[in-house]
Amino acid sequence: MSARSEALPAELLRTLRGIVGPAHCLVREGELFAYECDGLTLEPQRPLAVLLPSTTEEVAGIVRACRAHDVAFVPRGAGTGLSGGAQAVDRSVLIECSRVDRVLEVDAGNRLAVVQPGVVNADLSTAVASLGLFYAPDPSSQQACTIGGNVAENSGGPHTLKYGTTTNHVLALEMVLPDGETVRLGNRVGESIGYDLVGAVVGSEGTLGIVTEVTVRLSPIPAGVETMLAIFDDVVAACRAVGRVIRSGVVPAAMEIVDRRTIEAVEASVYAAGLPKDAGAVLIVELDGAPVGLPSQIDVIRTACEAEGCRAIERARDEAERKRFWRARKGAFGAMGRLAPDLYVHDAVVPRVHLPAILERVCEIADRHRLKLANVFHAGDGNLHPNICFDKRDPDELSRVMRAGREILEACTAVGGVITGEHGVGVEKRDFIHLVFSDEDLEPMFRLRAAFDPEGVCNPGKLIPTTRSCAESNPKARGYDAVPFE
Amino acid sequence: MSARSEALPAELLRTLRGIVGPAHCLVREGELFAYECDGLTLEPQRPLAVLLPSTTEEVAGIVRACRAHDVAFVPRGAGTGLSGGAQAVDRSVLIECSRVDRVLEVDAGNRLAVVQPGVVNADLSTAVASLGLFYAPDPSSQQACTIGGNVAENSGGPHTLKYGTTTNHVLALEMVLPDGETVRLGNRVGESIGYDLVGAVVGSEGTLGIVTEVTVRLSPIPAGVETMLAIFDDVVAACRAVGRVIRSGVVPAAMEIVDRRTIEAVEASVYAAGLPKDAGAVLIVELDGAPVGLPSQIDVIRTACEAEGCRAIERARDEAERKRFWRARKGAFGAMGRLAPDLYVHDAVVPRVHLPAILERVCEIADRHRLKLANVFHAGDGNLHPNICFDKRDPDELSRVMRAGREILEACTAVGGVITGEHGVGVEKRDFIHLVFSDEDLEPMFRLRAAFDPEGVCNPGKLIPTTRSCAESNPKARGYDAVPFE
Repeated sequence: MSARSEALPAELLRTLRGIVGPAHCLVREGELFAYECDGLTLEPQRPLAVLLPSTTEEVAGIVRACRAHDVAFVPRGAGTGLSGGAQAVDRSVLIECSRVDRVLEVDAGNRLAVVQPGVVNADLSTAVASLGLFYAPDPSSQQACTIGGNVAENSGGPHTLKYGTTTNHVLALEMVLPDGETVRLGNRVGESIGYDLVGAVVGSEGTLGIVTEVTVRLSPIPAGVETMLAIFDDVVAACRAVGRVIRSGVVPAAMEIVDRRTIEAVEASVYAAGLPKDAGAVLIVELDGAPVGLPSQIDVIRTACEAEGCRAIERARDEAERKRFWRARKGAFGAMGRLAPDLYVHDAVVPRVHLPAILERVCEIADRHRLKLANVFHAGDGNLHPNICFDKRDPDELSRVMRAGREILEACTAVGGVITGEHGVGVEKRDFIHLVFSDEDLEPMFRLRAAFDPEGVCNPGKLIPTTRSCAESNPKARGYDAVPFE
Repeated sequence: MSARSEALPAELLRTLRGIVGPAHCLVREGELFAYECDGLTLEPQRPLAVLLPSTTEEVAGIVRACRAHDVAFVPRGAGTGLSGGAQAVDRSVLIECSRVDRVLEVDAGNRLAVVQPGVVNADLSTAVASLGLFYAPDPSSQQACTIGGNVAENSGGPHTLKYGTTTNHVLALEMVLPDGETVRLGNRVGESIGYDLVGAVVGSEGTLGIVTEVTVRLSPIPAGVETMLAIFDDVVAACRAVGRVIRSGVVPAAMEIVDRRTIEAVEASVYAAGLPKDAGAVLIVELDGAPVGLPSQIDVIRTACEAEGCRAIERARDEAERKRFWRARKGAFGAMGRLAPDLYVHDAVVPRVHLPAILERVCEIADRHRLKLANVFHAGDGNLHPNICFDKRDPDELSRVMRAGREILEACTAVGGVITGEHGVGVEKRDFIHLVFSDEDLEPMFRLRAAFDPEGVCNPGKLIPTTRSCAESNPKARGYDAVPFE
């Protein structure tokens, strides 16, 4: 348990107000209410304050001031994260990045952009579209989430299959270390020199420092896009079709499966896409690239789906139809979310060959716990998203949701899978990390964290579970004390 | 300067012989001679001993024994590295990985292989070819170099343009830490959980521990390959053609330029490929993928080369012709190497737009220092390889080679480039790292290294330059003392 102060020391408040200006230092209850959690709503906690800096120097000043007063700090983007990474546990101060939101440079010749962390993901693609370029990582929240948050969580999206996750698109970073020093990692040509710390910082969930500038790779907008929708009687056959496509050597931009339970929810909602309600699953396949290369790939998809007995397969004839195909996928969270006050979007990855068996197991777990669960998933990546809708005000249901979640993760890791594909560990899965790593395997991670943040002031209580190395090597460290979650 | 013992302590020798057996513990002068350097031959240094372990447990035993006696250890693959990363500086023991050379598992369904570090790069592709798979990173030394060495140096090759370097193909690692603990990093599904330490270890040049097992991604062998050779009057036009191809959105598997000086050397050697000796440069472009998609890409290449005034452009009609096209590229080092006893293969990266100006500058530097220099380069990546042939027995010539090398790196970094693209920092470029990083930017790297190897026993004197953090945080640490190179 932390011994940190329950309130913001008055002297620190004065210093912080001096750094960002009183208007950008939120401390009143009414102002803080909106910052009690991010997309993981299970255990809200109010921050001591919310700071809205506008420059790297202000971020560094906040970090130095907080450290001097032994107050922890947590970086936050748009708060769309689903694992609690931006939650102010341990009586922390939030550093909110919405005001550091400029695109500093676009270099079309070298296909890169330098942006501040508060730039909204989709806005970057919009800003460079006229140059024929786009920013590839496309989390479902891309209309709201920020590049800084994407860097923290190493976000992916439906097009991860072809384009990879955020880490594949970050060339360089500027960051403020937990001691207030500002450093630059990586370089514009994307060759790692010395230790590749860019890779270690992407996905570190804000625990190694506060990223204040991101140099990202831009990709050429593909000249052609083809979207197909295949309807299957059962989800196992759809998974097998995905396996056939992968083995063919064709790499679609996306391969997404929506299961029967999700179809039912979507078709009963405003997202209805005209899908047959008796279908076992639909498979959405998107291909992109030079138009001349696409017809042969369409044939591969069609053959693979037909070989697995798909009931029907359609190819989008225009953008409107393409959007309709995607509606079931993109509306899944919304449709499920309307069925109950709360929605738990799970995230786990299994080797693709295990997808069919795991889906059956996940549904069995939910049924046994009497929960409403449906699956949409990045089938090409083996990345599952079981969604559970529930009411957290019902303690019994909440307890069943938590037990089911643990069983799902145990089932996935038992077949060689991992506990998160793109949502991060955060507070949500910190205590499940032993499903993937032994104490020995975690040791290098504790060493890295202690090397950057020996005093445990930078986003404490996230990513890895206990005090261990940090506390052992520095008696002042207590940021890593367990924060009760369940 | 190190205070380490000049000879192997007798008790340590007994222990090491007990671990690997006397036959696999080389200590006689005649046996050690072959291990005085790797591909960087400038400053040979004899190791105290060479150990040839055959299991992870033996590696861990060696590491623990060396550490107990404060003797440094250096991992070594095939010794083909070009930056001295496998050189036993600081009176070290070499841990040679040729006996840990098994392919432990091939999982075709999930497209991965688990290998020991001593597996030869090209042998892995041979082993999985019947499954329609290959291992993509293809350093020029791939017939000899090992996967473990590739991991240490984050090796690339001509096909880096499309496939990336080693780091893009490593999913998981087993490694022995400098304190003798064995840990596993990463996982088989390739999703980073917690801190991405796989990325930080790939390219760390054996300074964070000894890698004992590598889980690599395998790629499907492309169904079609097309190789083209374009002849230009001058190298600037060839560089511009590369820029046109990149801007078109086509991603060739490789785009390599061979300059006039290299053509002259190659055509005067056994590697003669029938290239016109008055050509300014040849550009080799390789495309791969589904055969149906290739003709339109061939048109893009042809149009780009013709728009930049290429003298002629050919498309390989068969494998024999394809090999002829590649001969000038692959024979470049050999042809240059025959002109003098020593060859210095440089390695630097510049943003592609600066390639033409940098090439002129590199040639001017060599001419001014009266050196024989020629350029072959991964033009698509902006990765230069200026090759200087010389005789190191001539102290004046050696001194001019070193001065020219420094000037080349300064010229590249002045336009935003970096000091190595694929050969690593090693001892060769350790003292040039300040051309890329400030003291502040190096600080996180010192912290990482100190966290893994506080006593400085693991491949000391490589990658980063001075004592700094390690020595400051641990008075026993002296492995990072400067080892004189120039």
